[in-house]
Amino acid sequence: MSYKIKDLSLASEGKKQIEWAERHMPTLMEIRKRFEAEKPLKGINISAVLHVTKETAALVKTLKMGGANVALAGSNPLSTQDDVAAALVEEGISVFAWKGENETEYYSNIESIVKIHEPNIVMDDGADLHVYIHEKVSSKLDIYGGTEETTTGVIRLKAMEKDGVLKYPLIAVNNAYTKYLFDNRYGTGQSAIDGILRATNILIAGKIAVVAGYGWVGRGIANRLRGMGARVIVTEVDPIRALEAVMDGFDVMPIAEASKVGDIFVTATGNTKAIRVEHMLNMKDGAILSNAGHFNVEVDVKGLKETAVKVRNIRPYVDEYTLPNGKKVYLLADGRLVNLAAAEGHPSEVMDMSFANQALAVEYLVKNRGKLEKKVYNMPMELDYEVARIKLKSMGIQIDELTEEQKEYLEQWKSGT
Amino acid sequence: MSYKIKDLSLASEGKKQIEWAERHMPTLMEIRKRFEAEKPLKGINISAVLHVTKETAALVKTLKMGGANVALAGSNPLSTQDDVAAALVEEGISVFAWKGENETEYYSNIESIVKIHEPNIVMDDGADLHVYIHEKVSSKLDIYGGTEETTTGVIRLKAMEKDGVLKYPLIAVNNAYTKYLFDNRYGTGQSAIDGILRATNILIAGKIAVVAGYGWVGRGIANRLRGMGARVIVTEVDPIRALEAVMDGFDVMPIAEASKVGDIFVTATGNTKAIRVEHMLNMKDGAILSNAGHFNVEVDVKGLKETAVKVRNIRPYVDEYTLPNGKKVYLLADGRLVNLAAAEGHPSEVMDMSFANQALAVEYLVKNRGKLEKKVYNMPMELDYEVARIKLKSMGIQIDELTEEQKEYLEQWKSGT
Amino acid sequence: MSYKIKDLSLASEGKKQIEWAERHMPTLMEIRKRFEAEKPLKGINISAVLHVTKETAALVKTLKMGGANVALAGSNPLSTQDDVAAALVEEGISVFAWKGENETEYYSNIESIVKIHEPNIVMDDGADLHVYIHEKVSSKLDIYGGTEETTTGVIRLKAMEKDGVLKYPLIAVNNAYTKYLFDNRYGTGQSAIDGILRATNILIAGKIAVVAGYGWVGRGIANRLRGMGARVIVTEVDPIRALEAVMDGFDVMPIAEASKVGDIFVTATGNTKAIRVEHMLNMKDGAILSNAGHFNVEVDVKGLKETAVKVRNIRPYVDEYTLPNGKKVYLLADGRLVNLAAAEGHPSEVMDMSFANQALAVEYLVKNRGKLEKKVYNMPMELDYEVARIKLKSMGIQIDELTEEQKEYLEQWKSGT
Amino acid sequence: MSYKIKDLSLASEGKKQIEWAERHMPTLMEIRKRFEAEKPLKGINISAVLHVTKETAALVKTLKMGGANVALAGSNPLSTQDDVAAALVEEGISVFAWKGENETEYYSNIESIVKIHEPNIVMDDGADLHVYIHEKVSSKLDIYGGTEETTTGVIRLKAMEKDGVLKYPLIAVNNAYTKYLFDNRYGTGQSAIDGILRATNILIAGKIAVVAGYGWVGRGIANRLRGMGARVIVTEVDPIRALEAVMDGFDVMPIAEASKVGDIFVTATGNTKAIRVEHMLNMKDGAILSNAGHFNVEVDVKGLKETAVKVRNIRPYVDEYTLPNGKKVYLLADGRLVNLAAAEGHPSEVMDMSFANQALAVEYLVKNRGKLEKKVYNMPMELDYEVARIKLKSMGIQIDELTEEQKEYLEQWKSGT
Repeated sequence: MSYKIKDLSLASEGKKQIEWAERHMPTLMEIRKRFEAEKPLKGINISAVLHVTKETAALVKTLKMGGANVALAGSNPLSTQDDVAAALVEEGISVFAWKGENETEYYSNIESIVKIHEPNIVMDDGADLHVYIHEKVSSKLDIYGGTEETTTGVIRLKAMEKDGVLKYPLIAVNNAYTKYLFDNRYGTGQSAIDGILRATNILIAGKIAVVAGYGWVGRGIANRLRGMGARVIVTEVDPIRALEAVMDGFDVMPIAEASKVGDIFVTATGNTKAIRVEHMLNMKDGAILSNAGHFNVEVDVKGLKETAVKVRNIRPYVDEYTLPNGKKVYLLADGRLVNLAAAEGHPSEVMDMSFANQALAVEYLVKNRGKLEKKVYNMPMELDYEVARIKLKSMGIQIDELTEEQKEYLEQWKSGT
Repeated sequence: MSYKIKDLSLASEGKKQIEWAERHMPTLMEIRKRFEAEKPLKGINISAVLHVTKETAALVKTLKMGGANVALAGSNPLSTQDDVAAALVEEGISVFAWKGENETEYYSNIESIVKIHEPNIVMDDGADLHVYIHEKVSSKLDIYGGTEETTTGVIRLKAMEKDGVLKYPLIAVNNAYTKYLFDNRYGTGQSAIDGILRATNILIAGKIAVVAGYGWVGRGIANRLRGMGARVIVTEVDPIRALEAVMDGFDVMPIAEASKVGDIFVTATGNTKAIRVEHMLNMKDGAILSNAGHFNVEVDVKGLKETAVKVRNIRPYVDEYTLPNGKKVYLLADGRLVNLAAAEGHPSEVMDMSFANQALAVEYLVKNRGKLEKKVYNMPMELDYEVARIKLKSMGIQIDELTEEQKEYLEQWKSGT
Repeated sequence: MSYKIKDLSLASEGKKQIEWAERHMPTLMEIRKRFEAEKPLKGINISAVLHVTKETAALVKTLKMGGANVALAGSNPLSTQDDVAAALVEEGISVFAWKGENETEYYSNIESIVKIHEPNIVMDDGADLHVYIHEKVSSKLDIYGGTEETTTGVIRLKAMEKDGVLKYPLIAVNNAYTKYLFDNRYGTGQSAIDGILRATNILIAGKIAVVAGYGWVGRGIANRLRGMGARVIVTEVDPIRALEAVMDGFDVMPIAEASKVGDIFVTATGNTKAIRVEHMLNMKDGAILSNAGHFNVEVDVKGLKETAVKVRNIRPYVDEYTLPNGKKVYLLADGRLVNLAAAEGHPSEVMDMSFANQALAVEYLVKNRGKLEKKVYNMPMELDYEVARIKLKSMGIQIDELTEEQKEYLEQWKSGT
Repeated sequence: MSYKIKDLSLASEGKKQIEWAERHMPTLMEIRKRFEAEKPLKGINISAVLHVTKETAALVKTLKMGGANVALAGSNPLSTQDDVAAALVEEGISVFAWKGENETEYYSNIESIVKIHEPNIVMDDGADLHVYIHEKVSSKLDIYGGTEETTTGVIRLKAMEKDGVLKYPLIAVNNAYTKYLFDNRYGTGQSAIDGILRATNILIAGKIAVVAGYGWVGRGIANRLRGMGARVIVTEVDPIRALEAVMDGFDVMPIAEASKVGDIFVTATGNTKAIRVEHMLNMKDGAILSNAGHFNVEVDVKGLKETAVKVRNIRPYVDEYTLPNGKKVYLLADGRLVNLAAAEGHPSEVMDMSFANQALAVEYLVKNRGKLEKKVYNMPMELDYEVARIKLKSMGIQIDELTEEQKEYLEQWKSGT
């Protein structure tokens, strides 16, 4: 078996990490049990580009136990946990990833996992692998289909679909309800606060927190901040979302106003420059700036750096910027995703649902080989429900089922008679 | 002017009611101001079937100030406020409605508002008027289009659209975000609790409340009950919604279990027999049963009546049923919508948004006369936003606008490059 | 048996009311069960001045079942429920009370319940009866002791104690933890909102509510308003309480500022003129004023009446005052306790604990006849705990008990070694 | 100047830490400003035993700027931050403390700060220094008085007062409302969750959390856990507190029951063995055990260690114990205070109030030299209020003041006329 990682001797440490993750990923573990028994992926070659973390390890091991051969590269040059990579190699996974790859190494690793075997299934997180296969691989491959984990990746693939260039069917795992309804709201909602606390150790109670954006991420963060005792202000550009925020009991105002009163700022807009230098100049001395959106453009870090008269590091992930007006603002994690940078990203419980969808999506592609068109499919609703059902069961929670009479009633009612 | 109401002398009392409503309907009042100045409905004949309440009066007056001639009948034989009807007649509206109409009178009133003038716009709440016009009116009418307020009505009209029988374009006001996201969650969420309190005067803190259904209505009620100090159990048939309820901190279990521990039950499932006799027999002595769903089928009232060995009225809207096992359960408002029956239904603030949509929908139909197809349209998004924008402004709340750079960023990002 | 009430034929209606109360007073019912078996009050004469409500009826019946002879007068000329009074007479209680007594009648009724038998126990709500006996009754009475329900009454009695004039021992039931920790926070917290909703039917979500005072009542109201979706501002004069409010996530500011932004105002300060005319002149057009404090002096109603250029009644319990600046404010229930005036006061569940304390206090006075000094005692702690214990049991809730090891640990630790 | 620390070269790092603390201790900084101007402690010798943290540094520097000479030793052999100690030495404070002192060194350091100068004021955290001076120092000292920061210390000192052996007056800073109402509820409430998250990275939403004890700490934790999306169960031995928990919307049950359903356990009882081996054997596989009470006796760690068949470390602060029944439980931070061990303890904002009280208490002792008795005083109420007032001001929050009329009303009312 071929692989390329940092240090195989880290495997035992990595194994404990993976165990801890698996313990908090009961949905995936339930699927693994079935995969082990049924071997639905028997002989299937999978090439996957994913963050090489303990949770991904739990997924990849599950695929292998289902019968697949898996080759794995990292989806980000900085996110690989080297001990986990080592443990995976010991489990028989062909891993090509280490923390701190340069760009050449990153793409070379992607190349390796395609060359190592002829993939039947292509799993991706950001679509770099899909694009690579479409653009660089000329040999004819027997690919049943692929999956995509992220919003960004899905957008890229849909653009390819529109241009008619897709070479195999794709499942947008990202669009599963059991993924996006949960990871944004509950995952980022908690971990953003975790990141802020680890970086600053401030008391949230009594503070005025400003959350830019009231999408799923913003809602999650706003609710959790309120749950910790903050007074929360929401800023929005969408009047319907703004109105929901008001009805949910939050203060809503333009960032130009909010910037004058906030103690802590968290951006979650999905847009650029939600907080600009003009707003920073408004801020109270000591204001804390952080970002929970995917890209590090929501706080205008570049503008801040150009404007500041002095910068120094205070604590890990806390940089102090002295503004021309003499006031200081504190930027967390250089404006990058505060939950990933200053804490540990999504808890395993959240990845559990995301990766349960991945496992079921892979099985679906194998089962439906040749039946799907070359387009981007949403996660099949029955699998989405299946994930929710297993998760609930794993938590010891039972729910009701429709009686025959209720099914008829709904049927009848929807048909409008 | 022709009309048929209970008692014109009630007008002054009705006028005060309407004033109180108008004070809490700032969105509609803002639109009224513009309508008064611009007269966009000049000369338009409107026939409307709506609940004749103080809030509807505010809408109808607005349409009239916009230049329209309005004839109004009630959409429910019991919901007409006679003093409001009188006040509307004094305002020059042709009202045909009184509390306690029989079925013949109900349909005769519908007939009257179509005969009194040739309607250009048809407004409805439940689609009885639309169906009447389609089925019973043979003369050729110059109808620009119609609006529909309810889910039920929209379903009926979509069935007609599917059958290809629609005679004019329709706007599903019900589907406006600023309607259904708000009236269910915040309107019913509050008013259901209001109804329970008026009926029973129980202390909610410390009680175990069971909310059947975690749709928008159920979410609203569950949150408000928690806000009043109850421990809340949610029952669901949909595993994704069930999982959301758990993540939102609620207990989730089957009604068969919940029925054993609940003190207060509220149904909001949109389905029949969410609580059945078998569950009632499980309940603690003294359990309180209520319904917040549209139809009075969610609690199996019929089954309860057949099973009970004794029934007596205890307080207004509270009936005591003694079960064969000797325990007593208390049914509120005979299983009908508890917020309408035992309290005053939606607060004016909620109808404000719904009826602002109605007013803008009517204007849109007039402006786009002849340009629309004979199908059921969703509320145009720009009008939906407009309602949210005016509502926020009326509350003194300003929000952000996208900068040019931000618009470009979003554009670029969505296009996937 | 002697009595004086409005109409005995109302008894059957009153009986249903009392049943409904008893169903929600499980603590008192548990005590009643024991009283019925043990007859601890056998032959004891009790004279009581209490609000003649369905909950008081449950208490008085319990005392009677414990063996006592009870004579009851009303503690407020307006609070007597005539049907309840009738039902009590049928139960063999000497009631002297009706709704709408004039002052002469009020005192004559007090006189009657002292004359009708020689009281051994004196129960009071406001201390009018205690004062009457001390000042007006010259004959020598065999009084074992008395109880007092209210803060006001306790203050009067402590002043008498200080002056050395007390003729019998008194138990300040008002000071029981299971009374004041619960009725203020949870009772008034809920019922004040109930009163506001019944009076106005406004939507609380999205409103700015101003709560004057952050004592137990203010905390209860602020929390419940937040639970209904309001943004809540607290005003305080005590900096420690103000800081707690901030840490609990509320906005805190002076009433001079809060008056400019609030939509709904509720006073709970225990002081006079918490909201003055100068503040009313600041308010937004349409502001709603209400009071949840004991006396109707917290909102300066007198000042408002003198200042307003026009007053009219809009709905029951809603008066519109037009100010010289043209704006209108709406005063609920004439500034009296909004939960009592516009709703039904404390739910039975709250009176349950208060009256369980009363029942146990009476039993304690009988048991300790002759052993107590002529002073005002706090509710004995063991009885207070007993009430909590029975209440929990009645709710089906079990709690832990200290192990021997834990008792020793606490003992040792508190002794500081 | 004499001192004994780890490494003076760490001073610049320590200085940044102190700056970060000072930025979040505005109350103390406001007092510092006044102390700098007024020099109320001019020439006063202070010997202090406190945790040598960045927050303590902010206090000690304040005392020095007020004119005092300060000698400082650590109050715990493990809590000293060596960089902070170095920075303090650079500021001219005689520090005798380093991380990892052995017991001999610990007491030797205490000795040093008494020998270095004749203390006028003695500050302590746990009473070790007070006891040392009382028992070991025979020379006559001119001590004006002392302060004590902790509950434990106050208990020891009160035992000494009772025995009549106190040699100087003491102020129980611990008993200030602005200390104990805030650090327990808001400080530990947040930091306990912070510690759990850092140790485990689990998702709190959807979990069942069991909080043992509903005192101030337990309330804080229960509320914050609910704010993060957990379903929270409270266990209690006190029926009144248990009832409050129920009324606050929490589930209450005995630990014997709660142990069967909980995912996360946090103890805050102030007692020993709140969670015993018999309960651990009940627990679900994977249950997490942690303690937020002062002493590490609340979870029976000793019993767990004796019972477990296997122990291994999984992550920092997470030990896995395999029970004889095959299930695993995870103990955080070896059962020690999870917020101190796995996170950073109280945020600076909380210590701000505690240490503002300390600073004012020291000034008070100096001002009242010779006027106080040799007993344990509560923090003077006017200073307590002063701390709250400054804190509010530092947060930009203004509150109301009583008018003359209001003062009279209160006066009159309290006097009972």
